[in-house]
Amino acid sequence: MARRRWPDVRFLVFGDEARIKPLVKRRQRLQKAITIHHTTSAVAPDEKPSVALRSGRNSSMRLAIDAVRDEEADGIVSAGNTGALMAMSKFSLKTLAGIDRPAMASFFPTLRGESVMLDLGANVECTAENLVQFALMGEVFARTVLGALEPTVGLLNVGSEELKGNDSVRTAAGMLRDLEHPFKYHGFVEGDDIAAGTVDVVVADGFSGNIALKTAEGTAKLYTEFLREAFRNSVMARIGYLFARRALKKLRARVDPRRYNGAVFLGLRGISVKAHGGSDALAFATAIGVAVDMAKNGFIEQIKTEVETLHEAGRTGQRATAL
Amino acid sequence: MARRRWPDVRFLVFGDEARIKPLVKRRQRLQKAITIHHTTSAVAPDEKPSVALRSGRNSSMRLAIDAVRDEEADGIVSAGNTGALMAMSKFSLKTLAGIDRPAMASFFPTLRGESVMLDLGANVECTAENLVQFALMGEVFARTVLGALEPTVGLLNVGSEELKGNDSVRTAAGMLRDLEHPFKYHGFVEGDDIAAGTVDVVVADGFSGNIALKTAEGTAKLYTEFLREAFRNSVMARIGYLFARRALKKLRARVDPRRYNGAVFLGLRGISVKAHGGSDALAFATAIGVAVDMAKNGFIEQIKTEVETLHEAGRTGQRATAL
Repeated sequence: MARRRWPDVRFLVFGDEARIKPLVKRRQRLQKAITIHHTTSAVAPDEKPSVALRSGRNSSMRLAIDAVRDEEADGIVSAGNTGALMAMSKFSLKTLAGIDRPAMASFFPTLRGESVMLDLGANVECTAENLVQFALMGEVFARTVLGALEPTVGLLNVGSEELKGNDSVRTAAGMLRDLEHPFKYHGFVEGDDIAAGTVDVVVADGFSGNIALKTAEGTAKLYTEFLREAFRNSVMARIGYLFARRALKKLRARVDPRRYNGAVFLGLRGISVKAHGGSDALAFATAIGVAVDMAKNGFIEQIKTEVETLHEAGRTGQRATAL
Repeated sequence: MARRRWPDVRFLVFGDEARIKPLVKRRQRLQKAITIHHTTSAVAPDEKPSVALRSGRNSSMRLAIDAVRDEEADGIVSAGNTGALMAMSKFSLKTLAGIDRPAMASFFPTLRGESVMLDLGANVECTAENLVQFALMGEVFARTVLGALEPTVGLLNVGSEELKGNDSVRTAAGMLRDLEHPFKYHGFVEGDDIAAGTVDVVVADGFSGNIALKTAEGTAKLYTEFLREAFRNSVMARIGYLFARRALKKLRARVDPRRYNGAVFLGLRGISVKAHGGSDALAFATAIGVAVDMAKNGFIEQIKTEVETLHEAGRTGQRATAL
C-alpha cells in the first residue's frame, strides 16, 4: 500500500529474514523496493525501556533506528514497544539543541480539518519550559507536514481565563505571550476545542494529552457502536441504511483511527514514527506516510533551523544549565 | 418538566420576583409547587469565588444554598458561576469529616450503560489522599444514585501498568489496593476505558478529569456534525435519512448532553448540583432530577455514614493534622 502510494520510496526491513521473505515473495514490485536486514533479536512488548536500551543493541528496533542515525534511512516506523522506541530513538538520534525532552505528536480530525496535538504521553510531568518547547516543535510540524500557513497554537487547560490551571500552564502561557517566536499563540484551549479545531496545534503535558487522545478514541468508538445499534433497531432503519450505505461508509472512513495512525517523536535529530501496537496494513501504511511526508518536506532541517536559531537567541525557554 | 416527572417535589425559587412571577403565572399547577424568595442580588458569571463569598451574602445563589443548610430545602440546583457555587456550598453546607476537598462528579453514557467520573475540575492539583477520598465518594454515589450493586472503581492514568503515571496516581493506587474499603478497586484505566464503561467510577484529578469530560463532549459534537454532513451528501443518503429518521432521533437523544446534565459537588453535608451554564429547560430539568434522586435515595445520610465511619477508623487516607 505504501509503495503504491509513494512509488519512489524504498524500504529497509529489519527482522527475521525467514519470516519476512515468504511475506514479500509473491509481490514482485515490492521485492525490488525492499532490502531485508536480518536479525532474530527483538524488543519484547513489555520490556522496560532501560533494559531494551542496555541489552537490545542487536534488536530489529535498534538496528532500524541506527540506520536513520547512519543516514541509510530517512526515517524509522515501528509498531513495537513505545517506551523502548522513544528511549532508543533519543539515545541513537540525539535531541535537538534547545529541546530538553522530545514529545509525541499526532494528527487528528476536527470540524475545521486536521490539527496536531502533543505531548501524547512521552512526558508525564512537564515544566513550563517543556510546554513552550512543545509549542515550537508542534508549530513547525503543523506548517511543514500539515501544510498550515500560519498555524495557531493553544495550551490545553481547564478554562480559558488567565488564572485557570496549574503552575506549568500558567507560566508557559506567560512565556508564550512574552517570548518572541514565529507563530500565533492563541491562548488556553479546553477539551472541547480539540475536536472543534479551535487551534492548529494543541499543546499539553503528556498526562492530560494522552488522556485526551484516548478519551476521543473511546468516544468515537461509543458513537460508532450507538450508530450501528440505531440502524439495527427497526426495519425502517435497516432500509434507510441500505440507501445511506455509501455515505455512511465515507463517514466511517472519515473517523477511522487507522487514517490518523503514526505518532511522531518530535525534538530528535531524525525521524522516528510510532505506529499503534494494533496496526493493520492500512494503519501501518498511514504511519509510513507520516514518515514519508516529514522526509519529503524536509522537516528535520526546518526544525533544526528554527529551534536551534531560537535556542541560540535564548528564546526556547530552556533552563540554563548550572556549571 | 421536573414537576411532571416528580409531582411530589416542591420548588423554592430564589431571584427577582418581578421577573420570575410572569414566567410562572400561566402554569397553575406549577404555581402551587413553587415558592418565590425575592432578591435582586445575583452572583455575576465572571465574579471571583472569593468576592462572591465575601459580598454575595444576599445573592440568589447564597440564599438558595443557605436554605439547604437550614433544612428548608433538600438540595440546591444552579446554572450560575461554578467557582462561586462551589465556594459558597463548601462554606455554608460544610465538608464531611474525612474529606479534605469536595469534588465535582457527573454521569456519562458508556457502552455498558452509565458511569460516574470525578473530579471534573474542582481540584486542579490532587494528592493521593484526595484521589482515595474521591474513590470513596464516587462509589457511594454510583451505588445510591446510579443503582450499581457493587460498583467498580478505576484510577484514570496513561497506562494500565503499575509503574505508569505520576506520583499521586501511583501512591493512590497503592492505598486503594492496601486500605480496607467497601468497594472493588479495579486498577488503572485509560482514556478509552471511560466510554467503554470498564468501571462504574472513574477517579481523576480535576485537571485531567475536566479535559477528559470536555474532550468527550467535543468528539461527540464532531461525530454528530460528520453524521449530518454524511446524510446531506447525496440524494440516496437523504432518502436513507427519511427511513432511518426515527432511529437517528433516538440515537441523538442517547448522546444528548442535556440528558447527562448536572454535576454534583460530592463531599459536602448537603446536596449541591451545578447545571451547565448553557442549560435549556430539558438540561435544567435533568439537573433537578439528579438532586431529586440524591435526596430520595438518602445520599447524604449514606455518604455521611460510610465516609465518617471509615474516617474514624483512619482509613480515608486523610493526612493527620500536625498539632
